[in-house]
Amino acid sequence: MPELRKDPIVGRWVIISSERSKRPSDFASEGSARRNQGLCPFCPGNEHATPPEISADRAQDTSPDTPGWTLRIISNKFPALVAQGELNREGLGIFDRMNGVGAHEVIVETPDHNHDIVDLSTPQVARVLHAYKDRITDLGRDPRFRYVMVFKNQGEVAGASLEHSHSQLIATPVVPKRVQEELDGSRKYFDYKERCIFCDIVRQERESGERVVGETENFICITPFAPRFPFECWLLPRFHAASYVDLSGEHIHEFAGLMSDVLRRLKAALDNPPYNYVLHTAPVLGDHGQHYHWHFEIIPKLTKVAGFEWGTGFYINPTSPEHSARYLREVTQTAPARERVA
Amino acid sequence: MPELRKDPIVGRWVIISSERSKRPSDFASEGSARRNQGLCPFCPGNEHATPPEISADRAQDTSPDTPGWTLRIISNKFPALVAQGELNREGLGIFDRMNGVGAHEVIVETPDHNHDIVDLSTPQVARVLHAYKDRITDLGRDPRFRYVMVFKNQGEVAGASLEHSHSQLIATPVVPKRVQEELDGSRKYFDYKERCIFCDIVRQERESGERVVGETENFICITPFAPRFPFECWLLPRFHAASYVDLSGEHIHEFAGLMSDVLRRLKAALDNPPYNYVLHTAPVLGDHGQHYHWHFEIIPKLTKVAGFEWGTGFYINPTSPEHSARYLREVTQTAPARERVA
Repeated sequence: MPELRKDPIVGRWVIISSERSKRPSDFASEGSARRNQGLCPFCPGNEHATPPEISADRAQDTSPDTPGWTLRIISNKFPALVAQGELNREGLGIFDRMNGVGAHEVIVETPDHNHDIVDLSTPQVARVLHAYKDRITDLGRDPRFRYVMVFKNQGEVAGASLEHSHSQLIATPVVPKRVQEELDGSRKYFDYKERCIFCDIVRQERESGERVVGETENFICITPFAPRFPFECWLLPRFHAASYVDLSGEHIHEFAGLMSDVLRRLKAALDNPPYNYVLHTAPVLGDHGQHYHWHFEIIPKLTKVAGFEWGTGFYINPTSPEHSARYLREVTQTAPARERVA
Repeated sequence: MPELRKDPIVGRWVIISSERSKRPSDFASEGSARRNQGLCPFCPGNEHATPPEISADRAQDTSPDTPGWTLRIISNKFPALVAQGELNREGLGIFDRMNGVGAHEVIVETPDHNHDIVDLSTPQVARVLHAYKDRITDLGRDPRFRYVMVFKNQGEVAGASLEHSHSQLIATPVVPKRVQEELDGSRKYFDYKERCIFCDIVRQERESGERVVGETENFICITPFAPRFPFECWLLPRFHAASYVDLSGEHIHEFAGLMSDVLRRLKAALDNPPYNYVLHTAPVLGDHGQHYHWHFEIIPKLTKVAGFEWGTGFYINPTSPEHSARYLREVTQTAPARERVA
């Protein structure tokens, strides 16, 4: 019997389709073959091919926009939103528009073209996570921006147009709908219970254990109760924290270790799947300290989203989160989980 | 300068990325090559390969589950939800679940394996649209169901697992989130204005004309002001009507003509793109007669949805709806819009 499950934060129902239950090997991963075609604008020596760097971790005796860096932050050459200009919010009859003012940046995570984020050392992943914090903090000072969204597209199928390992961020003049839904849902829960819903979820998940992928002293990775996608994973602090930018250096290092571990488990279980991850954190403005709780959502791209999902916001997920979590707990990280399909 | 636009019904912002502006020929359509592999369970003569038919348009002297039909409705062999059983709605600590009770049906639109819906005559498309109405009406009598969602996946990329032209419907025991958002948004507007927001949109779009793809006496096709996707199209009645099931036979015929015309324009402009369409209509229960307005949403599958979109519910659309509408108005339907990429 399939099951309908409701996400307690945003109220979204999903179908967990047990009849169609799928194991990791049922997903035909296209993998992420190295393409290596032509000049890579993110490789050392090609700094001239990108907009000037915003900041970088680089050797002391090196100049901006030259080699010698280990992490580099630049503006996106083809930005979805542009930095200059006023918002000019206006109505057009029944409709609302404003200028596409914002920031769109790229965090090049490593100088090595052949390393994905899973191949990086924990200190280097921690540097990437630090960069997220620094940029959110900096962009949060611009009064035009309401939200800074950090995300990563890994693999062409997941939307990555360049294969050199990188994350992106977009600062937006509005709070995005999905984030607003989480803020509204968690506020409603807090108004009723006087507790953070994410803290309650962490507590319940740790008691049952069946959807826990892994944890450290302060952080946990779970497969959510009502996941939209097979092997969807959430990483969040076990302690209450609304805003990612309050994370300490020590905690960032610990979190980097858990995040690396989870990404390696996904890679091993699903044969190097394309995936996206996104950071949800409290918006720049507003009082969200009591009810919101930052987290990363990792979504492997394994299934096609079809008309039913677009039309309803109602997802059919062929793998239960209990199964996903067990596969990820039990997978051997060093060897591929299955033979590669030729 | 890119532009941020807000959908007035559900409050979703989208980025219309003028800098990245894309014309139809910029989308590398994978087309929908005929595969023709093995036995097709939807072809006449193979009726035994599907669950028994629920109903069919068939010649008077023929028996159910034999050839002689022109349209056939069956249960999905691999249903996302199942018909038997009680809902057993229950809490699991903080979480909510219920049994996956519902209906999942397939409407085989033609006996001809080589015809897509765009190849069908207007009367045959009208038969398909009649079948939607009949099934929604019938399933609406089951007190366990709150909503009946009709949708079509055309092409493998859009999620069609069988190429023989068909639509699907799923009856669900809850109102799906996306539909609920439209109901809530249109109710708010009605409470404030005492008018239907869809009627106001139709009025404004007909005045400006720049997002009108086509219209008949009673129906219109527009590209919405804040579309999530390039060439997204909405088809709706010009008169106020909350529920699709109230559509008269004469109106169905007229609507079928407009729908065929729009699907042919999309095929010609975008080189036979994969697409999804969904029908949004008022739920079975509740008083939505004044503020809601049924419509079809057609979404060609041209772009990849990446981390930013999943994480934010905030879409980046590289083609403005004004451009999309103009291309669709001007396209020659009989000739392909561009040379096929080898």
